[in-house]
Amino acid sequence: MSRKIYLYDTTLRDGTQAEDVNFTVQDKVRIAEALVDFGIDYIEGGWPGSNPRDIDFFNEVKKSKKAAGYVAAFGSTRRAKLSCDSDDNIQALLQSGAPTVTIFGKTWDLHVREALKISLEANLEIIFDSLSYLKKRVGTVFYDAEHFFDGYKANSEYAIKTLKAAIEAKADCLVLCDTNGGTMPDELVEIINNVKKEIGDYPLGIHCHNDSECAVANSILAVKNGIVHVQGTINGYGERCGNANLCSIIPNLQLKYGYQCVSEDQLKKLVKISRLVNELGNLKHNIHQPYVGRSAFAHKGGVHVSAILKNSRTYEHIEPELVGNKQRVLISDLSGKSNLIYKARDFGLEIDQNDPNLNTILEKLKELENKGFQFEGAEASFELLVRKGLGNFRKFFDLLSFRVIDEKRSALEPPFAEATVMLMVGGEIEHTAAIGNGPVNALDLALRKALEKFYPSLKTMELVDFKVRILSGKDGTKAVTRVLIESKDEKDIWGTVGVAHNIIDASYQALVDSIEYKLFKDAYK
Amino acid sequence: MSRKIYLYDTTLRDGTQAEDVNFTVQDKVRIAEALVDFGIDYIEGGWPGSNPRDIDFFNEVKKSKKAAGYVAAFGSTRRAKLSCDSDDNIQALLQSGAPTVTIFGKTWDLHVREALKISLEANLEIIFDSLSYLKKRVGTVFYDAEHFFDGYKANSEYAIKTLKAAIEAKADCLVLCDTNGGTMPDELVEIINNVKKEIGDYPLGIHCHNDSECAVANSILAVKNGIVHVQGTINGYGERCGNANLCSIIPNLQLKYGYQCVSEDQLKKLVKISRLVNELGNLKHNIHQPYVGRSAFAHKGGVHVSAILKNSRTYEHIEPELVGNKQRVLISDLSGKSNLIYKARDFGLEIDQNDPNLNTILEKLKELENKGFQFEGAEASFELLVRKGLGNFRKFFDLLSFRVIDEKRSALEPPFAEATVMLMVGGEIEHTAAIGNGPVNALDLALRKALEKFYPSLKTMELVDFKVRILSGKDGTKAVTRVLIESKDEKDIWGTVGVAHNIIDASYQALVDSIEYKLFKDAYK
Repeated sequence: MSRKIYLYDTTLRDGTQAEDVNFTVQDKVRIAEALVDFGIDYIEGGWPGSNPRDIDFFNEVKKSKKAAGYVAAFGSTRRAKLSCDSDDNIQALLQSGAPTVTIFGKTWDLHVREALKISLEANLEIIFDSLSYLKKRVGTVFYDAEHFFDGYKANSEYAIKTLKAAIEAKADCLVLCDTNGGTMPDELVEIINNVKKEIGDYPLGIHCHNDSECAVANSILAVKNGIVHVQGTINGYGERCGNANLCSIIPNLQLKYGYQCVSEDQLKKLVKISRLVNELGNLKHNIHQPYVGRSAFAHKGGVHVSAILKNSRTYEHIEPELVGNKQRVLISDLSGKSNLIYKARDFGLEIDQNDPNLNTILEKLKELENKGFQFEGAEASFELLVRKGLGNFRKFFDLLSFRVIDEKRSALEPPFAEATVMLMVGGEIEHTAAIGNGPVNALDLALRKALEKFYPSLKTMELVDFKVRILSGKDGTKAVTRVLIESKDEKDIWGTVGVAHNIIDASYQALVDSIEYKLFKDAYK
Repeated sequence: MSRKIYLYDTTLRDGTQAEDVNFTVQDKVRIAEALVDFGIDYIEGGWPGSNPRDIDFFNEVKKSKKAAGYVAAFGSTRRAKLSCDSDDNIQALLQSGAPTVTIFGKTWDLHVREALKISLEANLEIIFDSLSYLKKRVGTVFYDAEHFFDGYKANSEYAIKTLKAAIEAKADCLVLCDTNGGTMPDELVEIINNVKKEIGDYPLGIHCHNDSECAVANSILAVKNGIVHVQGTINGYGERCGNANLCSIIPNLQLKYGYQCVSEDQLKKLVKISRLVNELGNLKHNIHQPYVGRSAFAHKGGVHVSAILKNSRTYEHIEPELVGNKQRVLISDLSGKSNLIYKARDFGLEIDQNDPNLNTILEKLKELENKGFQFEGAEASFELLVRKGLGNFRKFFDLLSFRVIDEKRSALEPPFAEATVMLMVGGEIEHTAAIGNGPVNALDLALRKALEKFYPSLKTMELVDFKVRILSGKDGTKAVTRVLIESKDEKDIWGTVGVAHNIIDASYQALVDSIEYKLFKDAYK
């Protein structure tokens, strides 16, 4: 049972319809490339006819050798009173240069009458006309039958006619959409089987929303019932309650049913792709998320823990490593040492199991993690911590004091941000000041000003990204702040982390780690 | 099709197995009472044989006239070498005084051999013996067949034998558990139908976990296939990826299939019960949660918005009011005049389509959105903007200046954060200072200190959440910062936003909006 299932990701289009999901154009290109590495077949990048930022994406992604061949542009069928030649939206799809185009059309007679305000017959012509126009000009053309299941329930005969119009126009796949997310699994299966009776074995796809918390089950049942193309998003992001979650659908199809979606090695990147999308979107990781969550294979109850130590199958439905996750036992210092050795090896550091520093490092790590530190995306901070613990790190400077002032002189002017720092470098006291765009920028500039005299290579270092997350936000501005900084020079990119009540202090920690890592690697690597 | 389905909630027992879920005994009693009001039939309160806090709960809940009759105590079958009379765990169940007892036993031969290390036959005796002992002493006794589906797949004959032992002991219901959460929906349906063939129409229950993101679908398909008793938790909390989510199962069963679970009025409390459990557990509300999330009926895309304004069925699978939720139209860069008018109506503001201020407000909105403002989740800022644009807002104070200082005196001490503010309030200059946990906290405290003298109602206002997002983070610390603040008082919760290069300035804007909104609503609403 190794039928190939085609994966169509719409994180960059439908995913961004979620209230809290926003990506820059650069983020979108980075995600598209990661999706290609992960084995996704089609990457819907945006709706070029609806907003200029999506046009920018298609222009940018053309420059990516990796992703350009995989992107799909999304749009609607032509407007009722226009020809395809004169319809901006259709033309924008062609101008996007995407090798695949997906357009949606109306299935539900209610929508044709009340939203489009045209006759049922005219809608069929629009579907046929738009698809056949595009099919002559683009390699692959998919048809999203919007509201298919609701439409079918309201008027099955008409719903089937819309599909037949798309078949006549030679669409490459007909995607049945549960747009409102209200269809129950047994209903969905019954309707798919009815459709198959009407249209034979034409390629069908599925596009589910999660409004009834059935999107994953609906998608896999659709595949079990003959569907070959599955649409969804990473982490299930999307409008309202989200789209079908590819991070659950893919392992369900592949590990539970044996369908062929991505390679075994690609499946091991599942946790990574889930976190990358969260990281770039500055979205919180859901620790309970199936397969990829930090708690997905975490065991707390005493009965469970003693059983999994005997045989992990007893309380784990799959081996976590298959999706790049791992088992966690939530009791102290059981698996600590070997974990740390394993983690350090990831960074090229071999630690002996009997090294007396190992326990000190473990304790420090535990203390930091309790404070809210997290070393995913901050590998440089982790490496510094381990190196300091092992005693093979020398300090490049010491902080004596800093002060950051933000002063606003009137309601209309932006505040003036100034930082002063006093450092001890090689026996000398260096005391200087700088102004910046904001407090962290001012502090960064003052630190560099003080240090560049001694370490000129710092001039080649640049801050690339700066992310702030508030932890346990229940007490408003008193909450703990985690700052992640990404830095680069001509050769490397590295991440560092700082955690404190005070955002300036957290930023300072991450800035110092970033500078120390740069100086360390220039001196010793 | 109005078959009654019995609801069995285990938020207080299995729900607390989640890594981040903890309730005090008082919280548990409060939740139990709310669950009774909501119409839950059985409330599993804890495992008295496993920890003393659970014993406390059963002692406390006895004093609640409302909840005492609904609680169930959970435990395991007797240990292999003990009689029921001498088994602490069984005795603790009796001592709990709960009118319902639920015990779990082993179905899977792997577990009998590897975890219990006894013969298959001995396990059957244990099941029979424990249940019949309890059945003679307690009103209602349920049997949780742990790992039922995995056990059935491994050795179906033995799995059925364990059920038959429970039937012989006259258990009131046999609950088929998908303990590891790995069973696919079609598999689950097939196994349930096989079981029914073997044991006739004995009452069956279902207990699912969400490790494959199918727990809700599995639970409702089980009901469709004859099951009468459904176990789950509020918001789906539970170990690893959580238990089956009653907040989705109940509306699915009742609104989609017409089964009878709770009354119509009780169903309208769904949003409330979901939030209560979050509130008491100090857990974050998932805005995308089906049925109960703040975004569950939120519309962003222009196509969707214009359609729902014509007919809400076009993009909503149910009427949100049925579950106590409501429709929201999101303000975003896709929006136009009709969006603005609709949204303003939400705030009780009628704007005429021809009001000359409308264009000015729209332009201001567009300008702010280009700067990075986003009013989703910051509706109070939006309302202030509209009111100011329409000219019906009076200022409560003016800023003359502020200064925030963060000073770190050594590498080891946290920095000292101090804010000074100078405001003009009703013709008087107010100049004061405060220290805080960080710069934003200090600024917040200084502003309140200056204003509370004039507006004492500010004392009832509290910051609930504080979020920072860095926009176009590609230029490191020079990037634009967006701050979202959530505030509350005894009556309302509201969100405000600020955007600036300087994080202190962005926070100041959001803080001021929050205070202005509070003062405005106290004075005029």
